[in-house]
Amino acid sequence: MASTVGQVIKCRAAVAWEAGKPLVLEEVEVAPPQAMEVRLKILYASLCHTDVYFWEAKGQKPIFPRILGHEAAGYCYISSLLSLYLSINYFQHHFTSASMCLAIRIVESVGEGVTELAPGDHVLPVFTGECKECAHCLSEESNMCDLLRINTDRGVMLSDGQSRFSIKGKPINHFLGTSTFSEYTVVHSGCVAKINPLAPLDKVCVLSCGFSTGFGATVNVAKPTKGSTVAVFGLGAVGLAAAEGARVSGASRIIGVDVNPKRFEEAKKFGVNEFVNPKDYDRPVQEVIAEMTGGGADRSVECTGNIDAMISAFECVHDGWGVAVLVGVPHKDAVLKTHPVNFLNERTLKGTFFGNYKPRSDLPSVVERYMNKEIELEKFITHEVTFSEINKAFDYMLQGASLRCIIRMDG
Amino acid sequence: MASTVGQVIKCRAAVAWEAGKPLVLEEVEVAPPQAMEVRLKILYASLCHTDVYFWEAKGQKPIFPRILGHEAAGYCYISSLLSLYLSINYFQHHFTSASMCLAIRIVESVGEGVTELAPGDHVLPVFTGECKECAHCLSEESNMCDLLRINTDRGVMLSDGQSRFSIKGKPINHFLGTSTFSEYTVVHSGCVAKINPLAPLDKVCVLSCGFSTGFGATVNVAKPTKGSTVAVFGLGAVGLAAAEGARVSGASRIIGVDVNPKRFEEAKKFGVNEFVNPKDYDRPVQEVIAEMTGGGADRSVECTGNIDAMISAFECVHDGWGVAVLVGVPHKDAVLKTHPVNFLNERTLKGTFFGNYKPRSDLPSVVERYMNKEIELEKFITHEVTFSEINKAFDYMLQGASLRCIIRMDG
Repeated sequence: MASTVGQVIKCRAAVAWEAGKPLVLEEVEVAPPQAMEVRLKILYASLCHTDVYFWEAKGQKPIFPRILGHEAAGYCYISSLLSLYLSINYFQHHFTSASMCLAIRIVESVGEGVTELAPGDHVLPVFTGECKECAHCLSEESNMCDLLRINTDRGVMLSDGQSRFSIKGKPINHFLGTSTFSEYTVVHSGCVAKINPLAPLDKVCVLSCGFSTGFGATVNVAKPTKGSTVAVFGLGAVGLAAAEGARVSGASRIIGVDVNPKRFEEAKKFGVNEFVNPKDYDRPVQEVIAEMTGGGADRSVECTGNIDAMISAFECVHDGWGVAVLVGVPHKDAVLKTHPVNFLNERTLKGTFFGNYKPRSDLPSVVERYMNKEIELEKFITHEVTFSEINKAFDYMLQGASLRCIIRMDG
Repeated sequence: MASTVGQVIKCRAAVAWEAGKPLVLEEVEVAPPQAMEVRLKILYASLCHTDVYFWEAKGQKPIFPRILGHEAAGYCYISSLLSLYLSINYFQHHFTSASMCLAIRIVESVGEGVTELAPGDHVLPVFTGECKECAHCLSEESNMCDLLRINTDRGVMLSDGQSRFSIKGKPINHFLGTSTFSEYTVVHSGCVAKINPLAPLDKVCVLSCGFSTGFGATVNVAKPTKGSTVAVFGLGAVGLAAAEGARVSGASRIIGVDVNPKRFEEAKKFGVNEFVNPKDYDRPVQEVIAEMTGGGADRSVECTGNIDAMISAFECVHDGWGVAVLVGVPHKDAVLKTHPVNFLNERTLKGTFFGNYKPRSDLPSVVERYMNKEIELEKFITHEVTFSEINKAFDYMLQGASLRCIIRMDG
């Protein structure tokens, strides 16, 4: 196979032409990566609420046509000769991993100045980046890179304000700098985490966004201690990942709060062992939780984005030591209101973005936790479709039937 | 001198008979301590805003007559024979300490079950306590003891609901469990910190409340790192103690925020090296601070209790890592309002009570920091009066002339 380095690649991509209309598989042109960019072959993508949210574009700036997708896993550049060597090598050593078989003919390229990604690297593209040079990247506490922070309104690459995607020369917009609903995509190298090549990409692709966001909120920010009580608001994929964080941390009581009681049975798999449906009570849920726990939960994690749930999540934690962590993204006009004495009584309210993980520095260790069987990703993956069936993944999510639906890009 | 153990002691106390009316020095009877209580001889008291606040009783439940006072230092029980030995011993070894001379004839008593306080202990009575048995005391994170937490509405002792003070048999109310504007007072033993007997009591008495509240808010809760930027809202005694905490922590920029520019000159002594008067700007002070600091302060400490200042203190900290700490007590109807995205951008809002110090466990170490010359208390002490001049201390505070006015109880 001839090298495609420096060439335009033609491949399939799922294009969102209009808000809320089914995606259409199209042949797109993917331009070569420019300086500090990499071109990736996406092997597995998964669908996240954020994709649906920007596809529906309700209350959002509509940016179409656009290639959505941001939870995914793939390979970085392998030169054509190296490709053969690596593919045989991988195949020999790691044939038990389903994903390995899919990689053997990837020939791809990186842009000028990219030094930390080598041929054949297995990677997770991430919707936010890590330049390793700005104040945020240099801070131990922040993961909100100044250069590569999430930008939902940008449909082009950062370096030149152009798209790398086109159909018959007409540009197609990027999404979150990742656009993983394409067999090939171009991403800033600062938005790519290099991971253990033994990791099964059809599982670890969910670490690109949802799982890490919820899990990190608990283990990196709320930090419950062994034996503690953690309340989780919202039992979707992010909330269940937060519960998984509580389980891994040794929390003994994990209280799931959701207005949809259908979620309670599934949540038991994730360590949630008590349930509260706010609709069952005529008083604020924070009072219910305070009663259940003798004064309040030790920690809470809010994963719905609903402003009332945010306030409840804060007010339900114990005075003296309670920590509430906000994860869910609120309406742009939402206002958080509470009596300041709730703070003065030694409660803490924090927010987190992508579970406080620095994408490049920290995600590899999350992959390792999965490899070491500390965390369980399989239970998050409820559905799988081929790329040509991608609209089914949207249906599953809209019906509330799926946690994560994996999209096999080769099908 | 005959022992007064088990006897009523007659002594001078400054009684607040009515809201806002000058205190009157009266001869009061001080009953012996009951189980788990101690009777203390107060040598130095200092006046705090909280005393003035409850003396004015504006918007507070008026509880009169009452013996105010809660920042103080004194001695615990010394039996009469031991007294002579200890006094000579102290006098010989520690004659350089002015406070020593005042202790030589204290004869006092402790109630049943008190084991951690020994004859002659030097102590700081504290307005909140530490039972060492409740969930808060057992938690490493909290100092909000369930049993002995501050109660501003209680004018009696916890054990029997009675006052230990009377005038001709008529009960006089306690204040914050301390009532230190009396030559002798009865305090729950859980509200008494035993300190280094070498510490000068006319200085360390300010550690009972204000200094520790502000200093602890910075060093225990905000925890600025070396070279960081700290904004302090309110440059009264508590705010200046917060600044002292920032100075000791090695903060390089300490930004003082106050609507009274007269405070700026004095604040320089406390390490405050930049000043912002919100009245000088037609935009929110959080925007001013964000501009001054390239995105926000690393830490802020709010010491005014004004709700707008609280919101500014939160919103002025840097995204990614900023931590704001609330110290000032707000109006009971105040509502803190902010956009939740301020949290999601990785800001933290915490509150603290008494600087997160556990009174008995932690205050002795603060005294040691003073003894080691790490912290400077002298600059907080701007005035001194005798006990008979106690109303002058109120005048100084009401005029905004004093930070701390020490009251020598022997004068």
